[in-house]
Amino acid sequence: MARIVKIAAAQSGPIQKDEGRQAVVARLVEMMRQAASQESDIVVFTELALTTFFPRYYEEDRSKMDGWFETDMPGGVTQPLFDTAKKLGIGFSIGYAELTPDGHHFNTQILVDKSVTIVGKYRKVHLPGHVEYEPERTWQHLEKRYFEPGDLGFPVWRTMGGVMGMCICNDRRWPETFRVMGLQGVELVMLGYNTPTLNSLKPGETAKTRMHHNHICMQAGAYQNACWVVGVAKAGNEDGNDLMAGSCIVNPNGEIVALAETCGDEVIVFECDLDECVFLKKTTFNFEAHRRTEHYGLIATQTAAIPPPE
Amino acid sequence: MARIVKIAAAQSGPIQKDEGRQAVVARLVEMMRQAASQESDIVVFTELALTTFFPRYYEEDRSKMDGWFETDMPGGVTQPLFDTAKKLGIGFSIGYAELTPDGHHFNTQILVDKSVTIVGKYRKVHLPGHVEYEPERTWQHLEKRYFEPGDLGFPVWRTMGGVMGMCICNDRRWPETFRVMGLQGVELVMLGYNTPTLNSLKPGETAKTRMHHNHICMQAGAYQNACWVVGVAKAGNEDGNDLMAGSCIVNPNGEIVALAETCGDEVIVFECDLDECVFLKKTTFNFEAHRRTEHYGLIATQTAAIPPPE
Repeated sequence: MARIVKIAAAQSGPIQKDEGRQAVVARLVEMMRQAASQESDIVVFTELALTTFFPRYYEEDRSKMDGWFETDMPGGVTQPLFDTAKKLGIGFSIGYAELTPDGHHFNTQILVDKSVTIVGKYRKVHLPGHVEYEPERTWQHLEKRYFEPGDLGFPVWRTMGGVMGMCICNDRRWPETFRVMGLQGVELVMLGYNTPTLNSLKPGETAKTRMHHNHICMQAGAYQNACWVVGVAKAGNEDGNDLMAGSCIVNPNGEIVALAETCGDEVIVFECDLDECVFLKKTTFNFEAHRRTEHYGLIATQTAAIPPPE
Repeated sequence: MARIVKIAAAQSGPIQKDEGRQAVVARLVEMMRQAASQESDIVVFTELALTTFFPRYYEEDRSKMDGWFETDMPGGVTQPLFDTAKKLGIGFSIGYAELTPDGHHFNTQILVDKSVTIVGKYRKVHLPGHVEYEPERTWQHLEKRYFEPGDLGFPVWRTMGGVMGMCICNDRRWPETFRVMGLQGVELVMLGYNTPTLNSLKPGETAKTRMHHNHICMQAGAYQNACWVVGVAKAGNEDGNDLMAGSCIVNPNGEIVALAETCGDEVIVFECDLDECVFLKKTTFNFEAHRRTEHYGLIATQTAAIPPPE
């Protein structure tokens, strides 16, 4: 058996603060063409793929940040992505800042099939960072200021020949993310990330350790749920702020089978056989045979860590 | 700050089926001496450390397997471990097959402090393998036949200067294991494993891939819960059956800081600073700030994977 989905991970190089969205979309369209020229079924773009990583900028009046958000998808500036996808017969997934008609702000990702229908929408659940300006940080990470936590859970969609899921950036560090999708039989998880190369609170943490954190979470998530994972970075230096690269495609054994080599716009492609998920889902990770939910209660009922008394 | 616990991981080489428990305990005592000679605070032994990995042997009459189990701890044959620990002033943790006075069978691990008090007991929750003889397997893995699933959950104990937890072998592949302990502030997880070098159902799965599975689960569990993990193998060839080695000590960044080099009895030692857990517990993995339990319900309420309809 083989159910091949040829996946392109389209890493974005840096987007400077004053780079217009039209120019950014042109870069994404170019990567979409590269993906299609290699007969990819789907191209996965990164988190907040249309702009610089704006949550690093503090603005007292939050409404002044609304310009970074999309009110329509597709909208005028993103329409070329949909038009090109239709012409090339390729699906795609892309992250963007979503401002809803009733004024809610989410860090969002959509899944668009080959007929250019938006078949799935995910809103980032695990927002990292903080709400207020924190002077002790080398730089700010204000996702908790500008976004609300996602309100859609971790849905999956049966489309494009398999069971597809999405998550975004910091979500990948939380095993709950992958597990909730695993419990719905997910076979491929697509995610993007904007992750600083260094730690704003711990200068001694090396770039190598941080890349290890990045990869190990996706690798464990893939293996422990017997699914493919595609992780797509926004990489490089944005107005003096370094973002890690390391975009990768991970197989259900948790092995990295394709890895970006640059910190710029770069497309990596791999033929993912969704049937490679079957063996582990039926054996080691046969959830029905092996999971013991009677001992998992704390996970869903207790938010904070509560150590035993001293 | 530094709260150093010097950990010794005492990997066991193979134990043949006809090797008496007295001889095995003598080997463990020797490793305990090595650990103490390096001023270790605690030595961690493997799963089912007193015998060969007997669940590979099928017996129609289960009661005929009771000879592999301990009815007392310490018992006559294990008393030297306790005596030596007391003399040397070292704590230890060890796995064994437990037969309770009322006839229950568990795959069990205990934690013994420096005063030689049994301060913690854990019973393996995630039993791998199967109940009946399965002829399609290259060898049998009958843990589900000979043991009941653990009935104690995943407790932690404040002892020996930190918050300590245990799990056993297959438990390490399940992120729920580490997370339930993480929610109780665990700082060090001790585990042992008897894991075949190859896969009884998939001859093409390489030893390298399987070692990767082994390590990545412990590394992700350590990082995602900001704790130390000590994984201790039973390694080598037991009566023709190869078990993987790869005993290791993993820091809260998910990095392997000590790794066994042999497939035999081998002690590796590392000074684990429990205060290294603090930074991640307060930032990236500040559960109170970042976890979103409203989206985790499935984890504790649904055992099996239920994919969307075709």
